Amino acid sequence: MGNVIIGQSGGPTAVINASLAGVIKASKKSGIKKIYGMHHGIEGFLKEDLIDLDDYIKDMSDLSLLKRTPSAFLGSCRYKLPEIEGNEDVYEKMFGILEKYDIEYFLYNGGNDSMDTIKMLSDYAAMHDKPQKFMGIPKTIDNDLPLTDHTPGYGSAAKYIATSMKEIIRDNESFGAAKPTVCVVEIMGRHAGWLTAAAALSKDSDCDGPDLIYLPERVFDIDDFMERVKKLAAEKSSVVIAVSEGIKVADGRFVCELGQSNDYVDAFGHKQLSGCASYLTNLITQETGLKSRAIEFSTLQRCATHLASRVDIDEAYNVGYIAAKSAFEGKTGMMITLEVVSREPYLVHYNQYDIHEIANVERKVPKHWITNDGTYVSEQYLEYARPLIIGNILPYYTGGLPKHLSLKYHKR
Amino acid sequence: MGNVIIGQSGGPTAVINASLAGVIKASKKSGIKKIYGMHHGIEGFLKEDLIDLDDYIKDMSDLSLLKRTPSAFLGSCRYKLPEIEGNEDVYEKMFGILEKYDIEYFLYNGGNDSMDTIKMLSDYAAMHDKPQKFMGIPKTIDNDLPLTDHTPGYGSAAKYIATSMKEIIRDNESFGAAKPTVCVVEIMGRHAGWLTAAAALSKDSDCDGPDLIYLPERVFDIDDFMERVKKLAAEKSSVVIAVSEGIKVADGRFVCELGQSNDYVDAFGHKQLSGCASYLTNLITQETGLKSRAIEFSTLQRCATHLASRVDIDEAYNVGYIAAKSAFEGKTGMMITLEVVSREPYLVHYNQYDIHEIANVERKVPKHWITNDGTYVSEQYLEYARPLIIGNILPYYTGGLPKHLSLKYHKR
Repeated sequence: MGNVIIGQSGGPTAVINASLAGVIKASKKSGIKKIYGMHHGIEGFLKEDLIDLDDYIKDMSDLSLLKRTPSAFLGSCRYKLPEIEGNEDVYEKMFGILEKYDIEYFLYNGGNDSMDTIKMLSDYAAMHDKPQKFMGIPKTIDNDLPLTDHTPGYGSAAKYIATSMKEIIRDNESFGAAKPTVCVVEIMGRHAGWLTAAAALSKDSDCDGPDLIYLPERVFDIDDFMERVKKLAAEKSSVVIAVSEGIKVADGRFVCELGQSNDYVDAFGHKQLSGCASYLTNLITQETGLKSRAIEFSTLQRCATHLASRVDIDEAYNVGYIAAKSAFEGKTGMMITLEVVSREPYLVHYNQYDIHEIANVERKVPKHWITNDGTYVSEQYLEYARPLIIGNILPYYTGGLPKHLSLKYHKR
Repeated sequence: MGNVIIGQSGGPTAVINASLAGVIKASKKSGIKKIYGMHHGIEGFLKEDLIDLDDYIKDMSDLSLLKRTPSAFLGSCRYKLPEIEGNEDVYEKMFGILEKYDIEYFLYNGGNDSMDTIKMLSDYAAMHDKPQKFMGIPKTIDNDLPLTDHTPGYGSAAKYIATSMKEIIRDNESFGAAKPTVCVVEIMGRHAGWLTAAAALSKDSDCDGPDLIYLPERVFDIDDFMERVKKLAAEKSSVVIAVSEGIKVADGRFVCELGQSNDYVDAFGHKQLSGCASYLTNLITQETGLKSRAIEFSTLQRCATHLASRVDIDEAYNVGYIAAKSAFEGKTGMMITLEVVSREPYLVHYNQYDIHEIANVERKVPKHWITNDGTYVSEQYLEYARPLIIGNILPYYTGGLPKHLSLKYHKR
C-alpha cells in the first residue's frame, strides 16, 4: 500500500477537522505508512508544500483535540484546476508529485468546486491508466451539495445560527416597553437559503423565533417587506428578521448593492459598502423612525466549534473515515454521501456517488419548503433540520477558553 | 418583614438573571412573603406593572434554568429618574406603590445610570424618614463601575469575545496562501475599552491573538493605523485587528462617523450609516487592494449565555444574594462591590459602598495598561482579566438548543 494525502478546500467549517481526524484514524488502522496533508489544499500541493501529519498527531489525545479545532487545520484555498485538455503539463506535474511521495490515495474535503478537483484528477488517472485513487469528502456549511441528504458542516452552522437567534431574540425582547427595536440578522448563503432557514429552528416552546425569514430562492420585494415590518412593529414589542446575504430584488440586483452609489465617496475618496441587513435597517429607521439594528454572523457561523453539533462532528468524522477506507478498497472518482434512512429515530447510511453527478451542481431549498409568500420555512424543513443540531462535543478548556490544535504551534 | 421588589435595568448581560436568582434565593431563605419583579425596570414600576415571581419560580429547577437564561428575564429599560426637587410627585407616587404592595426592600440591578435610581430613592427615603431599604446590584458588560474590581456581566462578555476571537483568527488563517485577509472586529464600549481589551485574552500557546487592539481611551490615528496594517500584511498571511466602537480621531469625531456624508443618500433617498470596522475595512481595501472583512459582535457579546463564565455567573448570583441579605439587615443606599483579595489563587470578598460614590461615575482602562503606542494591552490587564473567564455553567439543552425561562411562555 502506498501513502495517503488529504487536502481541505473552500470555506472552513466548525467540523472540517473531524473529517481529517477520520481520515487519519482509518489510515492508521489500515497500516498506511505516511499520511500527508496539503498545506492550503491543491494550491499548496502544486507547490509541493506538504505536511507530514505524524509531526502533529501522535496519539488519540491529539486526534480528539483536532476534532475540537475550528477551521481548516491544514489551511484551505479557493483554487480550480484547469481543463485537462491543453493543460496536461499541470496534471503531469501533479502525478509526478504523487509518485515522488509514493502517494496512492488522494482525498479532498470540500464543496462543489472541490469535488471538481476529484473529478479532474480521477478522469486524468482513468485516461492515462494511473493507479492512484481519488475520493471526495463532502464539506460545506452551505449544504448545497447534491445527492447527499445534507453536508457535514451544515448541522453545526445551523446550531450556531439557531442558538444565537434565540439569544438575540431574548436580548431584543428585553427592551420594548416603549417602541420596539427591529433587528435584522444577515446570514451566509449567496445562492441557497439553507443557513438562513436554520433561523427557524429557534422557534420553540420558550421562543417566538424570527418573525420573518427571507431566502435567496425567492425574489425579495422591498415594499412588501416594509409593510410587514410596520405591521409587526404595531403588534409586537420586539421584531427580529432573518435574511440571507443573497436576497435579490426583481431586477436581479442584490439588496446589499442597493445602498451603493457609484458616485458616492467619503471624505477620503473611498466608496462605502454595506451588507443587506445594514441597508434594510437604515431603510426601516428612515421610513418608520423605529430603532433598528443590523447583525451579521459573518465568519462566526462557520468557525464556532465551541457550539458544534455532536451529530455533525460524528458524521464529518465518518465521511472522512469511509472515504479513506473506500479508497484503500480500490474505489476512485466518488464522493461519500449521507442517506437518512429515518429522521425519527435518526438513522443514517453512508453511500458513494460518481463524482461526475456531484461536481459543480448546486442544490437549493425546495420551493415548497418556503411558506407564507416567501417569508418563512415550513414544518418539512424543520423536520429535516432538527436531527442535525442534536448533541454537543465540548471543547477542551484551558484558562477558560477552548484549546485548539495549531499547525504553527504544535509541531513536535 | 415586608415584601421585596427587584428590577433589571440597562443593557442586558449573559448573567443578569443569575443576580435575580440570588435575590430570589435570599428572599426565600429569609421567609419573605412576596417577591415582585418590575416589568421593564423602573419604567414598568411607575406604571405599577409588577410581576409576581411565584408565578414563574416554583423550585430550584426553575431557579437553575433562570441562571442559564440570557438577557433581562423581567425586561429592562433605559430610564433616568428626574431630580427630586420639583418632581416630588413622581417620588410620592413611587413610595405610594411601595406602600400599596407592602414592599420594604427595593433592589435594582444595573450600571451607572441604574445606580442613580438607588441614590435618588434612598435620598428621598432619608429626607422623608421612609422605612424602605434600597440596594444596588452591579451589572454591566462595560465593566465601568467604580470601586468594584470588576462588574458581573463583564467576565462572560470577555469570555465570549476571547473565544470568538480565537475562532475568527483560526478561520482567517486558513486562507492566506496568496494575499492575506485583514479582518477588523468591532467590539462594544463607547467610552471605556474593557471589552475590546478582552480580545487580548485570545493570545495563547495555540493562538497569535489579534495583531492590534485599539481602545477608546486613546486617540485613533488613521495614518498610523494604515501604516501598521500595510506592514503586518507584508509580514503575515492573516491580520486580525480588534477595535472599540468608540474610537475617535484627534478632532473628536468617532471613526464610525467618518464614512458618513450629509449629502449622500441612496436611490431611495436614505442616508447610509456604517460601523467603524466597516469604515476601516473599506479604507484598507481601497488603499491596499487587500481583501478585508468587518465583523461586529453586536448584541451577541452581551447575550451569549451558552458561553458564560462560571466565575461570572457565581459572582452575579452572589451580589444579588448579598444585596438582598444586606437590605434585610437594614442596609440602604449602597451597592455591593467585588474586592479581589488574591488573583492567584482567585479569592474574592464582597463589600458595599455608599451609592453616592458610585452613581454616574465611569471607570476607564488605566492608561498604563495600554501599550505599544496605543495598539495593545499590557500583561497587567491580562493578569486582571484571566480569572474572570474561568469555568462554564452549561445550558440545559433540548432539541440541541439551550433552553431558557421565559416571561411570556412559562407562567404557571
